[in-house]
Amino acid sequence: MMSKTTSPFAVLIPIGKELLNGRVLDTNSQFIAKKLWEIGVEVRRIVIVPDDCHDIAQEIKRAKREGASLIITTGGLGPTPDDVTMMGVADAIGRKLVENQQALQHVVSRYETLFEQGKVDFRELTKERRKMAFLPEGAVVLKNDVGTAPGAKIVWGKTWVYVLPGVPSEMKSMFDGEVIEDLKRRFGGARLFRLKIRVQERDESVVARAIKKVQQSFKDVLIKPEPKGFGLGGMTVNIEVVASEEEGEAILEKASKALQEALDGFLSE
Amino acid sequence: MMSKTTSPFAVLIPIGKELLNGRVLDTNSQFIAKKLWEIGVEVRRIVIVPDDCHDIAQEIKRAKREGASLIITTGGLGPTPDDVTMMGVADAIGRKLVENQQALQHVVSRYETLFEQGKVDFRELTKERRKMAFLPEGAVVLKNDVGTAPGAKIVWGKTWVYVLPGVPSEMKSMFDGEVIEDLKRRFGGARLFRLKIRVQERDESVVARAIKKVQQSFKDVLIKPEPKGFGLGGMTVNIEVVASEEEGEAILEKASKALQEALDGFLSE
Repeated sequence: MMSKTTSPFAVLIPIGKELLNGRVLDTNSQFIAKKLWEIGVEVRRIVIVPDDCHDIAQEIKRAKREGASLIITTGGLGPTPDDVTMMGVADAIGRKLVENQQALQHVVSRYETLFEQGKVDFRELTKERRKMAFLPEGAVVLKNDVGTAPGAKIVWGKTWVYVLPGVPSEMKSMFDGEVIEDLKRRFGGARLFRLKIRVQERDESVVARAIKKVQQSFKDVLIKPEPKGFGLGGMTVNIEVVASEEEGEAILEKASKALQEALDGFLSE
Repeated sequence: MMSKTTSPFAVLIPIGKELLNGRVLDTNSQFIAKKLWEIGVEVRRIVIVPDDCHDIAQEIKRAKREGASLIITTGGLGPTPDDVTMMGVADAIGRKLVENQQALQHVVSRYETLFEQGKVDFRELTKERRKMAFLPEGAVVLKNDVGTAPGAKIVWGKTWVYVLPGVPSEMKSMFDGEVIEDLKRRFGGARLFRLKIRVQERDESVVARAIKKVQQSFKDVLIKPEPKGFGLGGMTVNIEVVASEEEGEAILEKASKALQEALDGFLSE
């Protein structure tokens, strides 16, 4: 079983004023968090910041200081002047922002396709379009097959930084196409095991006591009731652990048995 | 017009592992951010942390250091041992956690109602139920008319801290019933003015140039295109400003005119 201190963890940094004034709901983080959790990477913090170089850099540096294996930003890659994510990332890791030839090629070819499809008025590169090809030095280009702005992967010591677009369809396509297999190779070995059990007790405050007792012997196992409101008769409890293929099922089974015993104990008191 | 440096700002701190592993989507922050933005309070950061006393306290102290007028936490108020929000808040502000008699009365009366409605098995206070009545010293109790755990409001120098439940129906009911009028009284004087305009230009990179130009003369106005994908013919641009009742409309009109002129200028180049 992996302990909390040694297991890899991620910090997600969604970027954009529209997420902070409530115009847009950040659904990207949930998508990413689910996929990371399935390969045993815990998301330890999600911090939404405005399109501000300083704020972006500050959060990235903080995550690095804490030892994050993985930092994923979403948003702020477009052609508008308030899209400053790449600049913030470059600042944070102390590298220059340079015109990346592969990224430029990607932008050129995306606009040509969009022009041929009649979706933009002209095929030429403007300063604004060109802006999207500036990535931190040494970045690996991540292709955007839905929109135009490429993403980036930066290996920064033991920390990998992924810079992804904010439009959900673009982010998802890039994550599934360019990110997840890469992460599986890196973090392979452990994965999430999950068990949902139904207990008869319907009062969360009683279930709480049983969980507290069991949690002491199973510190790495996440045991959490799903409160669904009162009066439904019984309750679902989630039991989760990140463990190796060999150990996972057995740990869940033991924890589940211990929980049931603790509950029976309390109820017969 | 209020400048960014003098205008009040908030930091939202949603709490809970279920928000970090993707099991639950944080919709609370969008609800709160929208309502705050309407009364001229900017949300400067939303930071989701696990149910961990240290993490919670750290984020609260940081927001205070930065001069946040408002800190709002959501989640972690229930009876289970992993609900530690009140403890984290008390730690952050350097006050003791004490059994609040009004909160206790609230918990007692909520469980009596639930028992009478046949939704819980017994009416008596257990240790777990009683736990929900422990609030930081000096806190004002916020009633929970949907669930059981009361919330809290703490006046901490110039910073107001609201501790709200995580279940959306409970949070919304408490926010609308106990929080928003309170905030309006405090922050009254400015509010959000918003204008959506439709521009003919459909290429975001061209619109970007015009916005950049206009933004220089209207630094407090938020001008943001809504990219909806290519090929839709034209584009919607949001123009927003927080200003006094007297000035708001006029500022929007001027900014909108300037944007249209900048676009016409570029297109006739």
